[in-house]
Amino acid sequence: MALPEEFHEIAERVNNWGRWGADDEIGTLNLITDEVVRGAAGEIRAGHRIPLALPLRQDGVQTGVIPGRINPLHAMVQVNQELFGPGTVACSDDVVTMGLQAGTHWDALAHVSHSGRLYNGRPAHLITAHGGAGFGGIDKVRHIVSRGVLLDVARTRGVDRLAGGHAVTPDDLEAAEEFGRTRVRSGDVVLVRTGQVQRYLTGDTHGYGYPSPGLSVRCPEWFHTRDVAAVANDTLTFEIFPPERDDLWLPVHALDLVEMGMLQGQNWNLEELSTACGEMRRYTFLLSAMPEPFAGATGTPVAPVAIL
Amino acid sequence: MALPEEFHEIAERVNNWGRWGADDEIGTLNLITDEVVRGAAGEIRAGHRIPLALPLRQDGVQTGVIPGRINPLHAMVQVNQELFGPGTVACSDDVVTMGLQAGTHWDALAHVSHSGRLYNGRPAHLITAHGGAGFGGIDKVRHIVSRGVLLDVARTRGVDRLAGGHAVTPDDLEAAEEFGRTRVRSGDVVLVRTGQVQRYLTGDTHGYGYPSPGLSVRCPEWFHTRDVAAVANDTLTFEIFPPERDDLWLPVHALDLVEMGMLQGQNWNLEELSTACGEMRRYTFLLSAMPEPFAGATGTPVAPVAIL
Amino acid sequence: MALPEEFHEIAERVNNWGRWGADDEIGTLNLITDEVVRGAAGEIRAGHRIPLALPLRQDGVQTGVIPGRINPLHAMVQVNQELFGPGTVACSDDVVTMGLQAGTHWDALAHVSHSGRLYNGRPAHLITAHGGAGFGGIDKVRHIVSRGVLLDVARTRGVDRLAGGHAVTPDDLEAAEEFGRTRVRSGDVVLVRTGQVQRYLTGDTHGYGYPSPGLSVRCPEWFHTRDVAAVANDTLTFEIFPPERDDLWLPVHALDLVEMGMLQGQNWNLEELSTACGEMRRYTFLLSAMPEPFAGATGTPVAPVAIL
Amino acid sequence: MALPEEFHEIAERVNNWGRWGADDEIGTLNLITDEVVRGAAGEIRAGHRIPLALPLRQDGVQTGVIPGRINPLHAMVQVNQELFGPGTVACSDDVVTMGLQAGTHWDALAHVSHSGRLYNGRPAHLITAHGGAGFGGIDKVRHIVSRGVLLDVARTRGVDRLAGGHAVTPDDLEAAEEFGRTRVRSGDVVLVRTGQVQRYLTGDTHGYGYPSPGLSVRCPEWFHTRDVAAVANDTLTFEIFPPERDDLWLPVHALDLVEMGMLQGQNWNLEELSTACGEMRRYTFLLSAMPEPFAGATGTPVAPVAIL
Repeated sequence: MALPEEFHEIAERVNNWGRWGADDEIGTLNLITDEVVRGAAGEIRAGHRIPLALPLRQDGVQTGVIPGRINPLHAMVQVNQELFGPGTVACSDDVVTMGLQAGTHWDALAHVSHSGRLYNGRPAHLITAHGGAGFGGIDKVRHIVSRGVLLDVARTRGVDRLAGGHAVTPDDLEAAEEFGRTRVRSGDVVLVRTGQVQRYLTGDTHGYGYPSPGLSVRCPEWFHTRDVAAVANDTLTFEIFPPERDDLWLPVHALDLVEMGMLQGQNWNLEELSTACGEMRRYTFLLSAMPEPFAGATGTPVAPVAIL
Repeated sequence: MALPEEFHEIAERVNNWGRWGADDEIGTLNLITDEVVRGAAGEIRAGHRIPLALPLRQDGVQTGVIPGRINPLHAMVQVNQELFGPGTVACSDDVVTMGLQAGTHWDALAHVSHSGRLYNGRPAHLITAHGGAGFGGIDKVRHIVSRGVLLDVARTRGVDRLAGGHAVTPDDLEAAEEFGRTRVRSGDVVLVRTGQVQRYLTGDTHGYGYPSPGLSVRCPEWFHTRDVAAVANDTLTFEIFPPERDDLWLPVHALDLVEMGMLQGQNWNLEELSTACGEMRRYTFLLSAMPEPFAGATGTPVAPVAIL
Repeated sequence: MALPEEFHEIAERVNNWGRWGADDEIGTLNLITDEVVRGAAGEIRAGHRIPLALPLRQDGVQTGVIPGRINPLHAMVQVNQELFGPGTVACSDDVVTMGLQAGTHWDALAHVSHSGRLYNGRPAHLITAHGGAGFGGIDKVRHIVSRGVLLDVARTRGVDRLAGGHAVTPDDLEAAEEFGRTRVRSGDVVLVRTGQVQRYLTGDTHGYGYPSPGLSVRCPEWFHTRDVAAVANDTLTFEIFPPERDDLWLPVHALDLVEMGMLQGQNWNLEELSTACGEMRRYTFLLSAMPEPFAGATGTPVAPVAIL
Repeated sequence: MALPEEFHEIAERVNNWGRWGADDEIGTLNLITDEVVRGAAGEIRAGHRIPLALPLRQDGVQTGVIPGRINPLHAMVQVNQELFGPGTVACSDDVVTMGLQAGTHWDALAHVSHSGRLYNGRPAHLITAHGGAGFGGIDKVRHIVSRGVLLDVARTRGVDRLAGGHAVTPDDLEAAEEFGRTRVRSGDVVLVRTGQVQRYLTGDTHGYGYPSPGLSVRCPEWFHTRDVAAVANDTLTFEIFPPERDDLWLPVHALDLVEMGMLQGQNWNLEELSTACGEMRRYTFLLSAMPEPFAGATGTPVAPVAIL
């Protein structure tokens, strides 16, 4: 099954291969300049900090549908162990096993390939079981700190959360910009709120994953036009699922990660941020969303924080 | 073996039990107020971002000496898998197993107990294999964003790195303040640089761990006087190891975590930050060092970033 | 909630503490003498070998109800990796994370305690997160090879599988002996077939676990009278679940493991063995069911084989 | 680097592709017939049982040289947890993460490929990160029970253990047959003792791995002539390491697993068996060495037992 013509047409328009040199492995993160960060610092007014990660728990958002992507398993190797003898200071230590994309995470550019190619035209076979991502791994990203913009599509449309079948379009994004009295610009990290994560937070883990609202295949071109640095939202699949066309699965992943070289974030909890932005009537902030530097990883857990 | 009298005397002076209420689980992080964060925002001048985490790799800083605290094991569960049929978009997915304190990390308050007590006087038996930390777990910490201050003890003393037997004292800390033309104040996160991490970075992983310079038992009182919110450094054990007295192991851990309720960070890479601060002649910055919210965990990997 | 009087009365009758010395850590496995094994060898007549383990898969029998007991997560660290250069011999290597009691397994004597005591009267606090089972760990069991006897309770009662509410009683066991024209004797490993595993094999994983037929609290005394070496069956919980009395949970575990010092096996697939025994009209065989020698473990996966 | 001509010549002579049908995935294990097993039963005379697995511990035989093949990490998820309320029966539960080939193990046929081919001529790309071994996985092996023969090369040569540079040849194997007054025949599982495991057992873990005695490239042909079902020994690499020719790495693996379709066992502890066989002057026994049925795995821990 080849990818349909529609996909290739969009791909051509959003393609960034070579834009930051033949060896570039971080794509649109190049758009976050020192100047962008200085500007972002100015968004800190109240000094509030809002965490955006879901708890990392064994009863996390994964249901077993995605093979191998297991929720965090937490286990103890020391519990109040007096390592240096009875009566000495006691330590507790723990270990975890988890899918790197199991909870609130960033996809690395290496996470997806299509037609045998990764971002910047590199061959897909650079990803191996031995060493993981030989190109575009998450460890190539040194930092993600920029201006964050919340596009609160659910609130803009006056609903708690978008319906499962809702494909978020560029019109939705622009309406949310207007609602938030802001405008997305080069180097911003855009957070798109659908409200879908409420399903998980209220106990419907299966309903959270499917069916899910999410980004339409028409969004990547909008992100490209605005020169967005990265995009995250509050769904399991990022893009609408099941997809808009049944002959085209995960097209947004392929366009964002492979063609544009733009990182995606999934399973971000934007509920508290939505409330705070609504109360402060400001939808911009400094966002710090540092990837854990797992060598050769195709994704990473992230504990983002919005500082308003 | 009881803890010596010297320990109890210091403990009494730095104790914060009850200071933020009987139910408090985050200790000195309470000192990071909105005002502190607003002030920290003003430290962002150049827009530079400096990551402080070591890569998470199987050949990380752990050597096997600390039982169970294994370096990250990275493995693949999908490599360019065309999940929806031949010719469709392909995904790569990975999993990791690791000790939560294996690399660059925060100790949670729950990490240490002494004399059967955790921070705030809670019984140590609240830590169990079932659920981990029932009190003082890292998931209780919502965010760590504050003004960061680098106390570059090595550079202050004119050396690349402190000798293995060097116990960093309050005098060292004050000399580093003066060297950096700054003064540590309430709510700051203090980063103490010894240069020891160079040993790991140049391939001497065993030498990195032992013998190691580190904080003297006399430091916690200084941190307490200054109302520091948290402290991190560039060593495996945080405090000098082997310790200053052979009848008193991990006293700084016990004083910081149990008595004061102050988080500690270990294995932070402060080399690049030291260079940047030296060049800019400024040793303060906004620090974002968000814990991954592992439920019930006694520690967490962290990918801190200094924004200057 | 104290354990009820009925429990203590049975406990007293089946107790084996001290029977094999104060330091014994293997309990009724002491009953498997060289003579028993020589006799078992005589049970090999056809040379057929029947494996009794369920596949170890991510979609195994665990549903998440038992916290931490995760199904095996299999991941790759090498796939056809030409470790010594292009064109050389290529290797594939894998790793696994799993609950030791997740699939077909033996419980170690250390798996259960009651009233603060383990088998042989040892204090329960010998089990710690540091090192696991300091007494009665599975690594203390050197080998489990003996005569195996299938007590096919389902077939004896003329049903495919026992109903969820069926508590297997000593009468059931004796009827199955008669049906199989055999008699359980000292040192035997007894396999009790309920047919319940069919639920899992036909896709009803939740129904497999609950409600489940299983051994009645009256069985341990029968095993004690016959001096059985170990018992396994084809259910998740071994004993009937939910239990016969709602003030007495897991009594069979406590009687078998703590009082008698008798290992239990769970999630054994006895379907093929049932067919083979039925066809051959013989319900005895040599059973090899070697524990994996995990140091300090409270249980172990096992791949048992019946040799007929 | 192509494989040398010498390799291809031997490969042609030992090749078993198609011998048991185009779909066969277990190779020489087909040689273990019911008759062979009946014969093996006759080898049980004393009723002694000798376990052949090394303990599964974090300080196991792996040193980190083989990437990803980590020693077992054992951690607790329950310690004396009274799951059903205070005073009820308490449970302890554990989890493990390990390389499947980390300790005493069988290599599956899928473990090695060369020139893009697996056993029976199947393409190497049937091994993927998604699902592991799509051909020749260890789960295809239902059982390994046969006559075992110890070829005690070290004892035959009158040494405790062979020197690091000793390549075990067919002459060595035949001398050991003669020494043991036995003859290897079709369907036997052959255990070749070098004594090398003593290095690990006495604390020299690095010396255990390298340099190591092991099987010469000339052995596979001998195994083929005798129609051996499987071979295991007491070394980390199975074959001599470093290899006999520096342009030919792991040739024995490629010949055994890919060409012959014969499973290999590594890190077996044959010390106690050697003593027992020496005392009884018999080097044959029933061997049960059941693989754990990990779905899609390229290897498996095994807890073999020799029954004499």
